[in-house]
Amino acid sequence: MGHRKIGKQTITFTNSPRVVAAGTVVGHFEEQGALSGHFDKVITDDKWGEKSFELCERKMYENAVCIAIEKAGKTTQDVDVLLGGDLLNQIISAGYAARSLELPFLGLYGACSTIIEASLVGSILVDSECANSVACAASSHFSTAERQFRMPLELGTQPTPTAQRTVTGAGCLLISKDSDNTSKATQPECFENVYITQATIGRVVDLGITDGNNMGAAMAPAAADTLLMHLEDTGHSVNDYDLIVTGDLGTFGSKMFYMLCEEKGVSVADLHLDCGTTIYLPSQKVVCGASGCGCASVVLGSYLLKRIEAGDIKKIFMMATGALMSPVAGLQGETIPGIAHGIVLERRA
Amino acid sequence: MGHRKIGKQTITFTNSPRVVAAGTVVGHFEEQGALSGHFDKVITDDKWGEKSFELCERKMYENAVCIAIEKAGKTTQDVDVLLGGDLLNQIISAGYAARSLELPFLGLYGACSTIIEASLVGSILVDSECANSVACAASSHFSTAERQFRMPLELGTQPTPTAQRTVTGAGCLLISKDSDNTSKATQPECFENVYITQATIGRVVDLGITDGNNMGAAMAPAAADTLLMHLEDTGHSVNDYDLIVTGDLGTFGSKMFYMLCEEKGVSVADLHLDCGTTIYLPSQKVVCGASGCGCASVVLGSYLLKRIEAGDIKKIFMMATGALMSPVAGLQGETIPGIAHGIVLERRA
Repeated sequence: MGHRKIGKQTITFTNSPRVVAAGTVVGHFEEQGALSGHFDKVITDDKWGEKSFELCERKMYENAVCIAIEKAGKTTQDVDVLLGGDLLNQIISAGYAARSLELPFLGLYGACSTIIEASLVGSILVDSECANSVACAASSHFSTAERQFRMPLELGTQPTPTAQRTVTGAGCLLISKDSDNTSKATQPECFENVYITQATIGRVVDLGITDGNNMGAAMAPAAADTLLMHLEDTGHSVNDYDLIVTGDLGTFGSKMFYMLCEEKGVSVADLHLDCGTTIYLPSQKVVCGASGCGCASVVLGSYLLKRIEAGDIKKIFMMATGALMSPVAGLQGETIPGIAHGIVLERRA
Repeated sequence: MGHRKIGKQTITFTNSPRVVAAGTVVGHFEEQGALSGHFDKVITDDKWGEKSFELCERKMYENAVCIAIEKAGKTTQDVDVLLGGDLLNQIISAGYAARSLELPFLGLYGACSTIIEASLVGSILVDSECANSVACAASSHFSTAERQFRMPLELGTQPTPTAQRTVTGAGCLLISKDSDNTSKATQPECFENVYITQATIGRVVDLGITDGNNMGAAMAPAAADTLLMHLEDTGHSVNDYDLIVTGDLGTFGSKMFYMLCEEKGVSVADLHLDCGTTIYLPSQKVVCGASGCGCASVVLGSYLLKRIEAGDIKKIFMMATGALMSPVAGLQGETIPGIAHGIVLERRA
């Protein structure tokens, strides 16, 4: 094992942490979208038999973790740490799920960047042999997010031209050490060939966006910053990747992302996939696309990882982008900063 | 380097991450307490020249980080990652401080356990050579916390018999690899001999407390759980430590902690120090003591680390305890779970 830090913000893993399984749970609106049929579980309505939207989100979170563990043929006893969070104040979806699951818990807050923040820290734990297996999860729920960050749904407020719809969804990645013997022979739904090989820790970047309905613009500068830093740190070019993925920039944010990269001489548009513009269909009229912790989590967990496992794509740089939006700070005149964390996911036979 | 995980929840560091410096900023009420004269900076009033309490807390956070970096004779360029959080929704104190400091940032939420969660993850980063130097910081502010979690101060609500006062304070630990050459010869205020040798990741534990004014009782079960797990994982007895420290159990929570440990045959009362009952004087009438992310952060940063460096105490198990209290979950009838993370701090000549 050598020195893992390369450049300024990037880590190269030396023990090949492996994504052995993923679990995803989504709302019915998400199931009607472009990735229909890819998700593990679809909830019946916005409360899924619970008394509140918040309780529903918690249940989704718990279920996503359990599905990932089950697909790997493991039990919670085999998982050393749960890492993750969600958009709600005091990350209650993750916290209460951790209580039921009785797993050691590292609570994270990175807004919509959480699933990659969790996978990044989780990979460090596995790579450094601080853990054999970690569950990394994040969730969001359209109705809990609207209530907390914007307007009560009952008001029927119209979305603005730059609005994005918060995904109702929870996703979990189970990351284990390379020597983990989970295999398709006994666990047909596991992954055998997906590795996390590098990670780039993001900075908080702020170009002065103040509109809580324009999350894409608040996050695009962070995505550009992290991608450019990753390329600088590693000496890679974007062409070394089959895809450059972002979590939830949406259509407007994606354009901003291309422009910011172009300014530094990096053409990313042809290689770019944004989870926020992938999950819904145009007919669903979600304006600029999807957002929320759940967006990157379920698109990665249900769709991208399967493509890597299948060999259809072999190496991606996956960023999740968070808008660190605070209603209190907003009322006090503050702008909305963004952050993006990235990991390299790679197929190895 | 060997396998770092021991037992179920504990990590043994193999490369001796070292606390090279700490920075603390507190309110004037804290400076009037039992640890008067120990803190690096005392703010002049509850707003410290800012327009809001929240902006004040952010400034304290930033200052604590800068003081720690300065004491080590470093600049932000020498710091690889800032890890931490605070009690506010979307951890805005930490997030906006990370924006100004322009440091790669891992946002954490562990309520009042945050400073130890940050130090634990930070130590893993340093120990595994993912980073050379990390800043781990947490803050709280009496006025921002009361506004968010309880009653507006203007109401003049009386504290209940189990209430604790949220510390106005921010603390930062700068953790570097062992080979870091920071020494007293050039940096008289640095630490030369304080190492983090083990860490125990806590679980979310809940014995059914519903009273937002009884944080100590909500956190005591988590502190007992983490201590008992640490002892089981390591084979240590409490007598292997000079002190067993908790973040902010207060007088009532401390008694509960003793009882819960005693039930498992562990007598901890004689070795116990609670930061929450240490920082204020009885004459300050804070009922059950102090609480808040800032409590453990500033008591550790200003007082305990100095005692370890001086050799007065040689080995402590330091836990910070978080009550994962959510006003929304509370209104929905939910109880308040707690979590405690622990690290072993040790003097090595």
